[in-house]
Amino acid sequence: MIADELYERIAAFGPVCLGLDTASTYLPPGLAEKSGGIAEGVYAFNRAIVDATSDLVACYKVQIAYYEAMGLEGMRAYARTLAYVRTKGIPVIADVKRNDIAATAEQYAKAHFSGDFEADWMTLNPYLGMDSIEPFLDEAIRRDKGIFVLVRTSNPGSADFQHLTVDAASGRKGPLYMAVAGRIASAASRCTGKNGYSAVGAVTGCTLRTEVSAVRALLSACFLLIPGYGAQGGTAADVASSLANGNGGIVNASRSLLLAWKDSPDGASLFAEATRAKTLSMRAAIAAEVAAAGAPGEK
Amino acid sequence: MIADELYERIAAFGPVCLGLDTASTYLPPGLAEKSGGIAEGVYAFNRAIVDATSDLVACYKVQIAYYEAMGLEGMRAYARTLAYVRTKGIPVIADVKRNDIAATAEQYAKAHFSGDFEADWMTLNPYLGMDSIEPFLDEAIRRDKGIFVLVRTSNPGSADFQHLTVDAASGRKGPLYMAVAGRIASAASRCTGKNGYSAVGAVTGCTLRTEVSAVRALLSACFLLIPGYGAQGGTAADVASSLANGNGGIVNASRSLLLAWKDSPDGASLFAEATRAKTLSMRAAIAAEVAAAGAPGEK
Repeated sequence: MIADELYERIAAFGPVCLGLDTASTYLPPGLAEKSGGIAEGVYAFNRAIVDATSDLVACYKVQIAYYEAMGLEGMRAYARTLAYVRTKGIPVIADVKRNDIAATAEQYAKAHFSGDFEADWMTLNPYLGMDSIEPFLDEAIRRDKGIFVLVRTSNPGSADFQHLTVDAASGRKGPLYMAVAGRIASAASRCTGKNGYSAVGAVTGCTLRTEVSAVRALLSACFLLIPGYGAQGGTAADVASSLANGNGGIVNASRSLLLAWKDSPDGASLFAEATRAKTLSMRAAIAAEVAAAGAPGEK
Repeated sequence: MIADELYERIAAFGPVCLGLDTASTYLPPGLAEKSGGIAEGVYAFNRAIVDATSDLVACYKVQIAYYEAMGLEGMRAYARTLAYVRTKGIPVIADVKRNDIAATAEQYAKAHFSGDFEADWMTLNPYLGMDSIEPFLDEAIRRDKGIFVLVRTSNPGSADFQHLTVDAASGRKGPLYMAVAGRIASAASRCTGKNGYSAVGAVTGCTLRTEVSAVRALLSACFLLIPGYGAQGGTAADVASSLANGNGGIVNASRSLLLAWKDSPDGASLFAEATRAKTLSMRAAIAAEVAAAGAPGEK
């Protein structure tokens, strides 16, 4: 069951989710030429990064926007990247943030849970309401896949709508994102694995600790996909507080890991090694904060 | 300027937006085989529909989910469909409902405003906030493109979040979708054409007339993309009230027009003619309601 597989990966390898959000400008000099083109270069880059980090991460996340921006060749590189991670038996998240009315949602579920673009998990946007999420969930259950629904994003503009105070169905007032979280928690109860986590997860950008605690408590059966580590400014201490004894969530970093080669003297030739070293540091920093948070009497 | 082009198309050809949401199951028997495959058949179908209706519609809208569901071959059919409409000089909307944090939004804007997947307009989801919309708007202004932002969708589940009462920045209480509409109205003022309409439009599913009036008043400079006509139950009278003297909006129908051949005795061979006839009826029904609404003393 997909949620148990992710739980066991996190337990064995730690909570890092390496984001293969590979812009063509991230490639070291010469790689595109050597690979026979930009999209080919992106795929070669991803493959080398996966080979160098597969024992350090819980999973990979592929941000489809970077591939769509390269057109049809980019979509081929996207498909090949997903397939490569899946042949290694490692979970891969399609970061597609899709959503639409039910009939269309079924098409998106088919698109990203089967065929050329098959992934294990996909990210969804909740704005259209729960009848636009349920077709994904039905398909996820049928195919043993999972979804992560946007609850609270890490960008400054998340305040525009996600933080507006709403009168929720429960009669309680709170920010919109907590109303979304409440509906996600209900959906999550449909498909919980033996480790207590569901095939329905949530994307929660960590900022204030009080927010993190409230979200973590409400979504106790959900894996949290925690963006914003590294290039976006999140720290290991921030994210450790979103985890539950080091499990129950994955911490994404993309740019800061993929561009590690730029800080290394021979990084252009040893780019995957540079990413490996930075991924190791990230994993260690989170593990240290998780250990500190778990140690009695410490803070 | 893109908004003026759409205004003039609506003025000349009426407000119908024909949705090329072409599921593989919509093809008449034999077309896929004759075309050399399912994705090829979808492209051949779309091309015939466009040839048969180009003098009856304001624009076309292509729902990418149906193409993503066919994998790489589907994405090729998507690209070819967009290109075919654009060579005819008719506006085409990429119905992609994309959204992400700013750096990723830039990639999506590049993806759908240039290259293989170039469209004239694209649909966006506002959940992440205005800093996730602005990169699209910047790129739209730079390339003379347009965006339609989801405000109020037509599915029953839209009530889950879009209808929650929020305390908006203005201090006024109202449904979330009106808070979104308020921000969209501000953004729209950045790029208004000589006909008074902006390159920023809004997707507004019409149900109650009081809702329609409030949205129409707030978004007076925005084209409204009105879904739900036909197969989803919207009537000509419903949509006429969302238009402003027959302009200022486009009315989408997809399934009801694409599947017109199923109601016609020789529809399988004359599928494009069946869609043409049904598109003519739809356009006439809307025009009659617009005329009735505009006639003094009538209702």
